[in-house]
Amino acid sequence: MQHPPINLTATSPSPAKERYMENGNIAAASPDEGHRRPAFGWAARDTSGVLSPFTFSRRKNGENDVTIKILYCGICHSDLHSVKNGWQNSVYPIVPGHEIVGVVTEVGGKVGRFKLGDCAGVGCMVNSCRSCHECARHQENYCPGMIVTCNATDADGTVTYGGYSDSIVVEEHFAVKFPAGMPLDRSAPLLCAGITVYSPMKRFGLDVPGKHIGVVGLGGLGHVAVKFGKAFGAKVTVISTSPSKRQEAVERLGADAFLVSEDPDEMKAAWGTMDGIINTVSAAHDVTPWLFLLKTSGQMIMVGAPLKPLEIYAFPLLLGGKSIVGSIIGGMKETQEMIDFAAEHNVTADIELIAMDYVNKAMERLAKTDVRYRFVLDIGNTLSAA
Amino acid sequence: MQHPPINLTATSPSPAKERYMENGNIAAASPDEGHRRPAFGWAARDTSGVLSPFTFSRRKNGENDVTIKILYCGICHSDLHSVKNGWQNSVYPIVPGHEIVGVVTEVGGKVGRFKLGDCAGVGCMVNSCRSCHECARHQENYCPGMIVTCNATDADGTVTYGGYSDSIVVEEHFAVKFPAGMPLDRSAPLLCAGITVYSPMKRFGLDVPGKHIGVVGLGGLGHVAVKFGKAFGAKVTVISTSPSKRQEAVERLGADAFLVSEDPDEMKAAWGTMDGIINTVSAAHDVTPWLFLLKTSGQMIMVGAPLKPLEIYAFPLLLGGKSIVGSIIGGMKETQEMIDFAAEHNVTADIELIAMDYVNKAMERLAKTDVRYRFVLDIGNTLSAA
Repeated sequence: MQHPPINLTATSPSPAKERYMENGNIAAASPDEGHRRPAFGWAARDTSGVLSPFTFSRRKNGENDVTIKILYCGICHSDLHSVKNGWQNSVYPIVPGHEIVGVVTEVGGKVGRFKLGDCAGVGCMVNSCRSCHECARHQENYCPGMIVTCNATDADGTVTYGGYSDSIVVEEHFAVKFPAGMPLDRSAPLLCAGITVYSPMKRFGLDVPGKHIGVVGLGGLGHVAVKFGKAFGAKVTVISTSPSKRQEAVERLGADAFLVSEDPDEMKAAWGTMDGIINTVSAAHDVTPWLFLLKTSGQMIMVGAPLKPLEIYAFPLLLGGKSIVGSIIGGMKETQEMIDFAAEHNVTADIELIAMDYVNKAMERLAKTDVRYRFVLDIGNTLSAA
Repeated sequence: MQHPPINLTATSPSPAKERYMENGNIAAASPDEGHRRPAFGWAARDTSGVLSPFTFSRRKNGENDVTIKILYCGICHSDLHSVKNGWQNSVYPIVPGHEIVGVVTEVGGKVGRFKLGDCAGVGCMVNSCRSCHECARHQENYCPGMIVTCNATDADGTVTYGGYSDSIVVEEHFAVKFPAGMPLDRSAPLLCAGITVYSPMKRFGLDVPGKHIGVVGLGGLGHVAVKFGKAFGAKVTVISTSPSKRQEAVERLGADAFLVSEDPDEMKAAWGTMDGIINTVSAAHDVTPWLFLLKTSGQMIMVGAPLKPLEIYAFPLLLGGKSIVGSIIGGMKETQEMIDFAAEHNVTADIELIAMDYVNKAMERLAKTDVRYRFVLDIGNTLSAA
């Protein structure tokens, strides 16, 4: 989830937060331990971002809940932001992780979709208001009361802790079922990186043969975007500043073409050829050259979130009726569809599977984008030993 | 047409221009006068932009052509840019004017939609390639070979001269029929200002009751946007820096609400309420505050074209799946639909009808936005006398 500050109250009021505040329910932050069970994970304690073992508690499984024993958790670039207070909203200790997969170990009485032993995952959110327009149309990701998987306050007033931990308890609605046989380690990143690129491809009709999709940036999101684009039957062109990535993009990931964005001739030859562009770059950058690559009415879809403003000339937008669109993860229904589609088409992330005690080194490498393309923590085999 | 530089080759090759160049057909710029007829108008001769009487020629009526005796021509802000070389692409002399209405005085043998005496208009374009994808889907406005009504080179190599003149000859396809009884003077601006706001309202489904449309800027485009929005049955809110425009917007133009963009409390109260915003401002400005006004998946539609880049933060786009979209006029089919809709719903522009010899004074006033809301030249009654 290369996402903006977790607290969506920047754009709209958060029912969950308001409820919490209205009740003056500060005590709820340390709720009745009788309804809690012990949990163990790794947490950052301050802006150094250094993670270390951390004992905490989670709620007991409720009637609508599933409990998942966590086996794998992906490391998203936003985890790095989160532990270092990059968005100025971190409250320590923080247990990061929102690309969580594991095995269901408990189901509540009202749970219908899961049974013990099922493979299940939790992505970027663990709650939403369930009553607003966005929730009604299965876009909990845009619900003003959406509660993210870590560093947030849940509806019961407790802090949300993520997947760098041994287990998670979540309402069935916010759990995703993984088809049997799907490689769980390589599938974990789909819960954030995957849905982030899948959702806008679907929204803008880029998910059909004959469409031409540009992918800017070949990182955690970009490499999955290439795979989904190809699985949809679209033509996929990777656009990158690094000519050195050409072979990787075309030969290994299966992109149809590669453009060096610094090469004006290559770029010009591709003007007006793309139906949509998935822009995964989260550093400040000039997007204008890429607008020229779009066909009329094409969309440049921002899934990276540069902190500095983009400088955008209106003319290239007007001249082709083009759009710059923001998109952030996807709704729960769509996330399940994405996982089912990925299972059917063998779409997974390219990962480096690491032990829990490698996490701080991994964060250092991630800060230098030294990973192809996603670190995934081997929680099941290495957390308790750490 | 608050549009970008006329020459669309900035984004894509222009077949018309290429054809002209390939032929080396410089002589075509002064074609066989035997196939020409005299015409008279007012032209700018240099970057002073001062207009004065000008004798030129137009082609004789071809078999697919209609000839229109011009009665009225609106003055668009882009005329001012054009005569003063504001877009660095002016070739003098320039006869501006692309909000042209009059009476059909001649029809070619293959013309089907028009007969002598019909009221007809010509808007921003007089030609397109007719064979590309855009033309096929009735979006000649995005055709790479689209030829605008003035300061361009037509397919036959001649210069296009606009509506500050006594007549125009145009292919039937690029003429718009005006229903009998429609007030031609007040309808002229619809051919640019009208279609510019109507087209994106249709494209993004804002043309139905229950939608909430924001209109930023209450000028030539903005005031027509309010009228179309209301005619569609939508709720319309005008957003302006000037509190003084509140009464005008609400009481005279019929807007449902008015927001002072400098008032943070007023703005915040309207966060997340609008389905789409028509942004008519062509000066550089910060669009971020307006993004917050949009609902999830809402569009801010740029129809003004600031020369300086917009500074846009990605976060407000991502957080609500919002878009910034460019739009420029509309196709011919849609323009005809717009005129028919306007006739049925009594949508016209608020104008100041002026004599031809007032044009230079009008341009001065326009530069200071001292007009409510569109100057229209009374060509029929005042051009020959000028």
